[in-house]
Amino acid sequence: MKKAIVLFSGGIDSTTALYLAKSEGYEVYALSFEYGQRHDKEIECAKKVANAAGVKEHIVIKTDIAAWGGSALTDTSIDIPEGDMESKDIPVTYVPARNMIFLAYAASYAEAIGAQDIFIGVSEVDYSGYVDCRQEFITAMENAVNMGTVCAVEHNKKIKIHAPFISMKKSDEIKLGMKLGVDYSDTWSCYNGGLNACGICDSCKLRLHAFNVAGYTDPIKYEERKEE
Amino acid sequence: MKKAIVLFSGGIDSTTALYLAKSEGYEVYALSFEYGQRHDKEIECAKKVANAAGVKEHIVIKTDIAAWGGSALTDTSIDIPEGDMESKDIPVTYVPARNMIFLAYAASYAEAIGAQDIFIGVSEVDYSGYVDCRQEFITAMENAVNMGTVCAVEHNKKIKIHAPFISMKKSDEIKLGMKLGVDYSDTWSCYNGGLNACGICDSCKLRLHAFNVAGYTDPIKYEERKEE
Repeated sequence: MKKAIVLFSGGIDSTTALYLAKSEGYEVYALSFEYGQRHDKEIECAKKVANAAGVKEHIVIKTDIAAWGGSALTDTSIDIPEGDMESKDIPVTYVPARNMIFLAYAASYAEAIGAQDIFIGVSEVDYSGYVDCRQEFITAMENAVNMGTVCAVEHNKKIKIHAPFISMKKSDEIKLGMKLGVDYSDTWSCYNGGLNACGICDSCKLRLHAFNVAGYTDPIKYEERKEE
Repeated sequence: MKKAIVLFSGGIDSTTALYLAKSEGYEVYALSFEYGQRHDKEIECAKKVANAAGVKEHIVIKTDIAAWGGSALTDTSIDIPEGDMESKDIPVTYVPARNMIFLAYAASYAEAIGAQDIFIGVSEVDYSGYVDCRQEFITAMENAVNMGTVCAVEHNKKIKIHAPFISMKKSDEIKLGMKLGVDYSDTWSCYNGGLNACGICDSCKLRLHAFNVAGYTDPIKYEERKEE
């Protein structure tokens, strides 16, 4: 059975990517990172979803991408913004070179287990200053992977980086996921780590909007809020 | 003052690279990894050398590249070989995609602090199955870095990966290091982590040979051994 590494945060994108890889006949090796996020909720959810999806293995790498700070995702001294999705600036939730680091680990994992396929659920459509979500970057990284792994260089077993949602809106991802039988009830997108999702951070807003456009109800619970 | 990230293990190559960067006028930010090596000696030595060299900052990233095993450097169930330097096979001390992971972190660090230069002390000459020590790989990775960082993509501040020893023999590195005033007495190369270096692993053999060819005495202590 052909093997695939799936970069897996337990959110909408990577969960849909995981189910897509399975539907294409891959034995899935999920790879998650505990990298100094503000909360453990994301990893808890990722474990549940990976388990429910029946992955072959799920490895969680602990590391501190946060060592040099500068992102609201890892630095608790920076406030998580409430809905500045329209801004053209680099979002404060940006973590420098995050996908490059994740893909480098995925390449190492792929080489170690003899996988030739890596899935990453990035999308250019949601791109707002996340330069490492663009096809140009994915292509350049795939080239680096094939210059820096023994399987590719010595045995001509090239590694492919699949970014199936690169040109897809999140609402279309959700439609695809529904067809593939994804259960989104344990997926987590919120930048905050409460019992329920906050519903007001950028990530929650993007998610709720996407479910709305797709014509489905988001199955997770959100904090109740007073009408303003 | 221009800033440089130096990938820094505390061995001969990266220590010489660090001094070279300083001699070229860079303010040095050293980056080391505790990644499941068999011993802590390497990190201890790296801290001493970085401190003595007067770096601006020295960050040690803890991570588990060892999660998928397969290398004698991280997997204690695999014996460290004694001198199979002539072998054409992939050495058991190879860690898949290690330099790719290190360079991805360096790119993140560079972007976070506004550095445009990364130094890595790899050499193709010592290449024996380490595909990620080749110029083709460094070039491909530099391209990926410049496709995946905001400084390069949005502000045209490209990042350069310097691999000054890529075509240099280790003995020539040592000659250069001596001219630059490097004190090698706290550098550590041995794959084993004893009080003194073992003198018989591949890495010790390569080091001793290089000092010999360069015409210098290696200032570190080696285990005394009976003549066989």
